[in-house]
Amino acid sequence: MSAAEEPVEPASVTDGAVGEGLLLAPRGLEGVVVADTTVGDVRGKEGFYHYREYSATDLARGRSFEDVAHLLLRGRLPGRAESTRFASELAGQRQAPGAVAMIVSGLSALGGPMETLRTAISALGTELKWQPVLDLDAGTLEEQVARLIAAAPTMLAAGHRTSLGLDPVAPRTDLGHAANYLWMLSGTEPTGEHARALEQYLIVAIDHGFNASTFAARVIASTGADLASAICGAVGALAGPLHGGAPGRALDMLDEVRATGDASEWVRQAVGRGDRVMGFGHRVYKTDDPRAVFLREVARGLDGPLAAEAAQVEKAVVDTLRELKPGRSLYANVEFYAGIVMGSSGVPRDLFTPTFAIARLVGWCANVLEQRADNRLIRPLARYVGPPPPVPVPPLSEG
Amino acid sequence: MSAAEEPVEPASVTDGAVGEGLLLAPRGLEGVVVADTTVGDVRGKEGFYHYREYSATDLARGRSFEDVAHLLLRGRLPGRAESTRFASELAGQRQAPGAVAMIVSGLSALGGPMETLRTAISALGTELKWQPVLDLDAGTLEEQVARLIAAAPTMLAAGHRTSLGLDPVAPRTDLGHAANYLWMLSGTEPTGEHARALEQYLIVAIDHGFNASTFAARVIASTGADLASAICGAVGALAGPLHGGAPGRALDMLDEVRATGDASEWVRQAVGRGDRVMGFGHRVYKTDDPRAVFLREVARGLDGPLAAEAAQVEKAVVDTLRELKPGRSLYANVEFYAGIVMGSSGVPRDLFTPTFAIARLVGWCANVLEQRADNRLIRPLARYVGPPPPVPVPPLSEG
Repeated sequence: MSAAEEPVEPASVTDGAVGEGLLLAPRGLEGVVVADTTVGDVRGKEGFYHYREYSATDLARGRSFEDVAHLLLRGRLPGRAESTRFASELAGQRQAPGAVAMIVSGLSALGGPMETLRTAISALGTELKWQPVLDLDAGTLEEQVARLIAAAPTMLAAGHRTSLGLDPVAPRTDLGHAANYLWMLSGTEPTGEHARALEQYLIVAIDHGFNASTFAARVIASTGADLASAICGAVGALAGPLHGGAPGRALDMLDEVRATGDASEWVRQAVGRGDRVMGFGHRVYKTDDPRAVFLREVARGLDGPLAAEAAQVEKAVVDTLRELKPGRSLYANVEFYAGIVMGSSGVPRDLFTPTFAIARLVGWCANVLEQRADNRLIRPLARYVGPPPPVPVPPLSEG
Repeated sequence: MSAAEEPVEPASVTDGAVGEGLLLAPRGLEGVVVADTTVGDVRGKEGFYHYREYSATDLARGRSFEDVAHLLLRGRLPGRAESTRFASELAGQRQAPGAVAMIVSGLSALGGPMETLRTAISALGTELKWQPVLDLDAGTLEEQVARLIAAAPTMLAAGHRTSLGLDPVAPRTDLGHAANYLWMLSGTEPTGEHARALEQYLIVAIDHGFNASTFAARVIASTGADLASAICGAVGALAGPLHGGAPGRALDMLDEVRATGDASEWVRQAVGRGDRVMGFGHRVYKTDDPRAVFLREVARGLDGPLAAEAAQVEKAVVDTLRELKPGRSLYANVEFYAGIVMGSSGVPRDLFTPTFAIARLVGWCANVLEQRADNRLIRPLARYVGPPPPVPVPPLSEG
């Protein structure tokens, strides 16, 4: 409790009334603009989204993950020398420090990968002494951001391997962000094709307009809290089923289809039962989701049994849906292709959501930096609608 | 990336314009009512705040911490049998599980107590398998809340002792929440007077209207995330200097006064330099802060050198301020008395903010339960104000 707390102003928000000068926001803050941003935006009606002034999918076509992270975090695409410097700045900081590595290995056998990642990020900030009031020894906020982005895949991969009873694989400095992540997962150097496919997935997943996890990070950062606090909150929010979804569902669906042996028949049964066909149908864009369009392209360029099976099943499902629900265009969605790309590249299914978090981390950090550069405490009000106080407190004997 | 994400609607929020049907909120959501609550409220103009239908200070006068927690978490004050049952439900769950205890001991020598507490809570949720989609084996949300409130002081006290090179002191089941916390800090059973004073502090600190940490917890909980995710975000937000303040400052001030040897002279010098006199003056209530009034009463009832010194210094500071700034009433504030009460009871100064968090935890959990009982994803919008896209992505060679 502290004098820094500003209480709700009195008469204004009690008795179910909203007082003068106050605004009653729609539930869930739907349609309420709470921040100005230069990080990026989504234009749902146009099937377009962007990071800064560039199309996100154009960036994924033409640049590395590190270059796009530089754009988000430092405001511009790097030139050649800057690109090399930033990539090696990240590559040199991949190792997790001692206590964090111990924590990841201790926890990952007990809990899920998202919860372990959240704990690892919290521990990283603790061990590196990231405090609200910056200690110069702990680096600038920009330096902390780079450290976190570099080390997060290491913590995630180490936890995954430990949970399987395998030793962690140490990060390499001679591989890019995505290739090194795949290396740490398996101990085998990925093909250039797989590393690039995953890198492109990571790029298109960095940001996607304002969302609940990004907002959580900004609310926490707005109190002047440290980076790890803001990002732990964001990881937590992303894990919620109303936010992060379940990219693993596309592969679960392929499993079911494989068990049935006939994709068309599987769809007929699912539709007959009134089930939603997971991985198909757009909920959000009025037109094609640019992430789905791009990742379909990436998935189709991949060799391997999963990509081939996915293409075959996709065709059968789309054809059958067209027959069963004429007039509606139900194509495979971003979740479907993201699952195919991650799965084909060698990311285990239970790491799909945490791998998404590894990408989105860059977007969260860009938002934290933006919030802190022109900060104001985010502190809305609530309206008390309970029974009117004060009722006398009954002594325990009468209770 | 997932189909569950709902993107910002397009034309509406680009080009610096706010489209039809959208609302541009004041910065920091100031004056915006975002939730209905029955948890409690603050009536700043009346110098009054309440939990449910009871005055918070009346509750602190007449009831135990556990009873008030029951009121916040389960909606009503318990009767005698229920009170005993709930207190022993909490007392029986104080022990931290194995991996969490190991993590606390590994981290507390490296980082600060708030960061260690945040990590410990994240680890607790991980080890106990608190997941967004509730696993029955992991208990109901209400059960998880009780476990967290019971175990948090244990983790905090163990971390504190380890950071000093001392062995943790195991919790006891025969002491109340506050007395057991003091026991775990020192290994000495506190006097009834000290335990009750700290208990009363904890009660008045449980909630205080909507604030940034409470809002962070609700934003995260609104995605369907697990309890530990929501509370990690809240602990993080509380650590921010714009939110939690620094209750340790009151004792820092007493140190300075002691070094000067003359409180009146010390104030003259501080005012002469234009410094704010920490621990004095109200920023938030239009009238007396009911927390300060109540905790002054508690502090004055305490024996011991710190309470005596504080009373003496307070009188000298208030008299001198009255002389230097006539017409303004500058009394000691809630931060001052909270520091005296915690310090006199045996809480070390660097644990003042985490001890505040241990109390506020009950308020956060009540808000999480309320959010989840009638949930809607909290997902506002941002307005893109950067350079208009799409600019062609330059290849690296030209960059």
